[in-house]
Amino acid sequence: MIRVGIMGATGYVGSELVRILLQHPKVELKLLASQNHIRCKYNSIFENFKKICEIKCVGNTLESMAKEVDVIFLALPNGISSILVTESILEKVKIIDLSSDFDLSSEVYKKWYKTEHYNRDLLNKAVYGLCELKRESIKKSTLIANPGCYSTCTILCLYPLLAEGIIKENSIIIDAKSGITGAGRTLNLEFLFGECNESIKAYKTTSHRHTPEIEQQLSELSGTDIIITFSPHLIPVNRGILTTCYGKLKNNFDYEEIKEIYENYYFYEYFIRLTKKGVFPETKFVKGSNYCDIGFTIEKRTGRIIIVGAIDNLIKGAAGQAVQNMNIMFDLDENMGLKTIPIFPT
Amino acid sequence: MIRVGIMGATGYVGSELVRILLQHPKVELKLLASQNHIRCKYNSIFENFKKICEIKCVGNTLESMAKEVDVIFLALPNGISSILVTESILEKVKIIDLSSDFDLSSEVYKKWYKTEHYNRDLLNKAVYGLCELKRESIKKSTLIANPGCYSTCTILCLYPLLAEGIIKENSIIIDAKSGITGAGRTLNLEFLFGECNESIKAYKTTSHRHTPEIEQQLSELSGTDIIITFSPHLIPVNRGILTTCYGKLKNNFDYEEIKEIYENYYFYEYFIRLTKKGVFPETKFVKGSNYCDIGFTIEKRTGRIIIVGAIDNLIKGAAGQAVQNMNIMFDLDENMGLKTIPIFPT
Amino acid sequence: MIRVGIMGATGYVGSELVRILLQHPKVELKLLASQNHIRCKYNSIFENFKKICEIKCVGNTLESMAKEVDVIFLALPNGISSILVTESILEKVKIIDLSSDFDLSSEVYKKWYKTEHYNRDLLNKAVYGLCELKRESIKKSTLIANPGCYSTCTILCLYPLLAEGIIKENSIIIDAKSGITGAGRTLNLEFLFGECNESIKAYKTTSHRHTPEIEQQLSELSGTDIIITFSPHLIPVNRGILTTCYGKLKNNFDYEEIKEIYENYYFYEYFIRLTKKGVFPETKFVKGSNYCDIGFTIEKRTGRIIIVGAIDNLIKGAAGQAVQNMNIMFDLDENMGLKTIPIFPT
Amino acid sequence: MIRVGIMGATGYVGSELVRILLQHPKVELKLLASQNHIRCKYNSIFENFKKICEIKCVGNTLESMAKEVDVIFLALPNGISSILVTESILEKVKIIDLSSDFDLSSEVYKKWYKTEHYNRDLLNKAVYGLCELKRESIKKSTLIANPGCYSTCTILCLYPLLAEGIIKENSIIIDAKSGITGAGRTLNLEFLFGECNESIKAYKTTSHRHTPEIEQQLSELSGTDIIITFSPHLIPVNRGILTTCYGKLKNNFDYEEIKEIYENYYFYEYFIRLTKKGVFPETKFVKGSNYCDIGFTIEKRTGRIIIVGAIDNLIKGAAGQAVQNMNIMFDLDENMGLKTIPIFPT
Repeated sequence: MIRVGIMGATGYVGSELVRILLQHPKVELKLLASQNHIRCKYNSIFENFKKICEIKCVGNTLESMAKEVDVIFLALPNGISSILVTESILEKVKIIDLSSDFDLSSEVYKKWYKTEHYNRDLLNKAVYGLCELKRESIKKSTLIANPGCYSTCTILCLYPLLAEGIIKENSIIIDAKSGITGAGRTLNLEFLFGECNESIKAYKTTSHRHTPEIEQQLSELSGTDIIITFSPHLIPVNRGILTTCYGKLKNNFDYEEIKEIYENYYFYEYFIRLTKKGVFPETKFVKGSNYCDIGFTIEKRTGRIIIVGAIDNLIKGAAGQAVQNMNIMFDLDENMGLKTIPIFPT
Repeated sequence: MIRVGIMGATGYVGSELVRILLQHPKVELKLLASQNHIRCKYNSIFENFKKICEIKCVGNTLESMAKEVDVIFLALPNGISSILVTESILEKVKIIDLSSDFDLSSEVYKKWYKTEHYNRDLLNKAVYGLCELKRESIKKSTLIANPGCYSTCTILCLYPLLAEGIIKENSIIIDAKSGITGAGRTLNLEFLFGECNESIKAYKTTSHRHTPEIEQQLSELSGTDIIITFSPHLIPVNRGILTTCYGKLKNNFDYEEIKEIYENYYFYEYFIRLTKKGVFPETKFVKGSNYCDIGFTIEKRTGRIIIVGAIDNLIKGAAGQAVQNMNIMFDLDENMGLKTIPIFPT
Repeated sequence: MIRVGIMGATGYVGSELVRILLQHPKVELKLLASQNHIRCKYNSIFENFKKICEIKCVGNTLESMAKEVDVIFLALPNGISSILVTESILEKVKIIDLSSDFDLSSEVYKKWYKTEHYNRDLLNKAVYGLCELKRESIKKSTLIANPGCYSTCTILCLYPLLAEGIIKENSIIIDAKSGITGAGRTLNLEFLFGECNESIKAYKTTSHRHTPEIEQQLSELSGTDIIITFSPHLIPVNRGILTTCYGKLKNNFDYEEIKEIYENYYFYEYFIRLTKKGVFPETKFVKGSNYCDIGFTIEKRTGRIIIVGAIDNLIKGAAGQAVQNMNIMFDLDENMGLKTIPIFPT
Repeated sequence: MIRVGIMGATGYVGSELVRILLQHPKVELKLLASQNHIRCKYNSIFENFKKICEIKCVGNTLESMAKEVDVIFLALPNGISSILVTESILEKVKIIDLSSDFDLSSEVYKKWYKTEHYNRDLLNKAVYGLCELKRESIKKSTLIANPGCYSTCTILCLYPLLAEGIIKENSIIIDAKSGITGAGRTLNLEFLFGECNESIKAYKTTSHRHTPEIEQQLSELSGTDIIITFSPHLIPVNRGILTTCYGKLKNNFDYEEIKEIYENYYFYEYFIRLTKKGVFPETKFVKGSNYCDIGFTIEKRTGRIIIVGAIDNLIKGAAGQAVQNMNIMFDLDENMGLKTIPIFPT
């Protein structure tokens, strides 16, 4: 059994990790750390775990936790894990970081934030844990930067086309829509029910932190500098990300040719499902699962391809992919504990 | 492996049965019948099953299906199964009926509907499949009347108190709230998004068909005729039933005494969870699971007890309990395939 | 023109007052006080007022505001207005208090809270502003205790029946459902979108502060001590209260007799609408308006009457009724500025 | 008083027309036609009009209605008004058509649909009723093609930039999001609550009928052929459209320069509101009103401008703009009956 610890266990991502890991056949959930709930029973915070999880939260340091478990999931606010994780900790334990602290290369980080990263050495060591792309590196790594939710869905949509080099550089626009849990379980007026419900809005247009993350990965895939427009929106649903990706095709492809490319890349991928011609993904059909659904259409009039991807932001966009990373690192079946069928009606 | 057939596989309850049974370790899902979708691939109707369920719908009769499977779930509109099921079919196959066709005794049926039941002999043979109450009869039965969603939640709330005889007869009022999927996947103006969303309403006040169903069971439990007021409401959520039950206590009980009664009855029940003092059930904490959460408070000023129950209407209120019945009938662990942790955020 | 000031202008009730008063033909909105937003433009906080309301918030004391306006609406958290309002202020200005500070008589207050009210003299002077019941007293008053949202809807449902003495004392149970804005615009984990959405729950069962408020008014109406069970629930909609009221009839009335009673009491009431036989109120049909819709049915089997009422909690349950009170106090048409048609689809 | 008739009065757009026109000081609502509800009281279909609108629906033909009123609003499904409207009717009455039957020029119609328009002569006579652009033509017209909801919001976002010629032709992508009432009050499985709620999806990508409508208007404005990518999405809210428009700027503009262009075009427009720098429109801030809110940002890295627009699809996107057109045609104040403040919380 793999002994597991979680830091930041009482956020939405933390609780999703607990839910998935409790149902994982090879995991022993040992330590749930939460600074605000030390000694609280986990199921008094999240009543869905009544009679299921009797664990009490602890206030352990990363250091002390590292001695008791085989892998630690960090589900902390951005900016903390890059301070906490050290080389000496990584000698004792594997780390899967669900914040965005290790998501960029040190160069991209510096360029985007105009400052050096706090923990540049580890940054260069971290492996970007987009499982379908980085499987081999993940296997050998001890520090995983679990991708952002938007980034996961977007990159999976675009990866085969960029790897094949058939989309014009710098023609890419991503219009993304996310449910409210993407903002986490934090007290902020903006996320009150009365403020979100029955409304649609754009936010952080051109400035969202997943922009450089997506650009770095796409650039790497295509071998050229890719600059994208990324524009996220907030939608009044609990879970779900839909990314609508627009790009100009370099040549006059038809549907079947592109479909073949996607199938070449994804046919053996358990968690990627291609929709049929004329059918687009809907978030309700992936909710509660680790699937990423992808569909596309070609607009002959404009020479554009439009690719739509859908994931559950808390699963494939966070906790589910983190467990998928753990499975790869520990040489388990990649889909172990992650085979749940999407729940519809949601 | 138990070979299973479903009639009415393309409603919400049908699709929930498919979802649960596909994840059940002892079940082979053989036949999905749907008159409107003969030869359609199931996952073209419900895209959540993409790459998961490649079965094509059939138009089999109950007769012909009975020859190929061990148990048939009937997830049909009310009024059909009482016509379809016959003694000779029951000799070949076990039937779990999720409509309300066999939910009442023939006497109660006649009294409520002022007419004889179409299939009175089978009605008397059918066992009311509220698992926690009727386990022993279910084991021996070949025809299960799977309880209504409201009835399940209400009866589980009231059962220990009525069995103990501590609530005044005829003081019971049940104010129930249900999500919209309770109405099924049927085309009706009333259930359009624009009509349900952002609104609350009462419906079928004093006339809902679960009223005699609840009364019959409560009367049986208490050994006296119980007449209730039952008032359902429609709430704009997908899943979830909350029943708020009011009754006068015969004596001056305090919280701990009542709590002990509940624990005596339910301590060993896997699917029943009692909330702590001061905590009431919320539908979000049972969603996606077969649990029924129950909490209560005593109002000294009025001598009333208020009991609140919460279930997922499509699971413990329909498909989940039906599978629980199947487990009992086939002598499997009662919770097999039903141990999913409630999914929160929903 | 009536010069108006609002304290607590940046909560949901405050903003609803602003919206209604800006469209009121006899009102000049002079001062919007908000301690947290002094000198902020009101329409930078609530963007719906862009190009409509250019007022800047002030931090005025009640004293100083009293010199500049004719009437002040207090839309403050509970516990503040009873400290702020004094006799000398009431000599200068009329006050309509939307908190619950002056809602109880001093006797009921003491009995319920086991302590003397902070401002007992004014408490005895305040008039309970349920317009349809207290019109004459409101006219002469300078201090109005604007009723609670649940109380308004419940009392309007029960008033004619209790005034006529046809319901058994102490048989009354009120099961109420409210949208989330009832909780105000306050930072509380419980009211985050991810916590409320897609869930139903009971809260403050038997302990909600509107319980004694309703009891006091019903007791006054019936001339006997009425003790009720009041049980509120939280529903994931923005606006709307539905109250389902249960009571035993003293005699064997039929529908038409009760209907006549309601018509006798409410025929000339602009804001009360009785639904037809067989039709129950739905919150979507009152949303955005000052109407209270009422419907009922009689259950012969149990001797109970079930009355259902619906209001928009922010309008008839708060700001709308406050303006209705102002209209009465200033001898304007009672429906002035309040004739908006309910907006459906909501 | 202007005597008004409505055909198709019992859809969502029809009922919104009724609601607005009943509150319009210069309108007498004479005839509400609805083939499915002849002789039904309007307020028995839409209970929000209880005690407000006692009109009974009629089954009048357009011919007969034309004799009794001054203007007729056609709120019918697409494909009907182009059959009903004739020259001789237009001699007697003004027509405002809310379907898309007259929205395209005959050339664009033929090009897009590969067939001649049924009523080509009237098509050429109809004026596209986007009030802010076509005021002078609307004044003189007797047949108004009321614009589509998406088209209204999109064109208002892009109009000043295209009129100024500062956006690269054929760089325009519009990613639009709409609430569910945009689909009308029609029985379709897709729009059941359980199907829409808690989900996000793209639909009619590259094939929505508003595509040629937008292209035609933008081409006209810019004097060159504009081909756009238009991609609508369905969002689980009742009302609201958000359009996110992407385009390449021809030159290196900064924010203030573009802002000045918008102000030049829209400063005197009552119904257009520009958000401040850094603030984007949200549908909640226009709901219930005829406003169109517009905000934008420039992305220096990509040379793109991103413009976001928000309207209430049933008001500025349908019934409100239709009334605005009527006001222009009858030489009334353009905002008469349309000054309602957006209702927030929605």
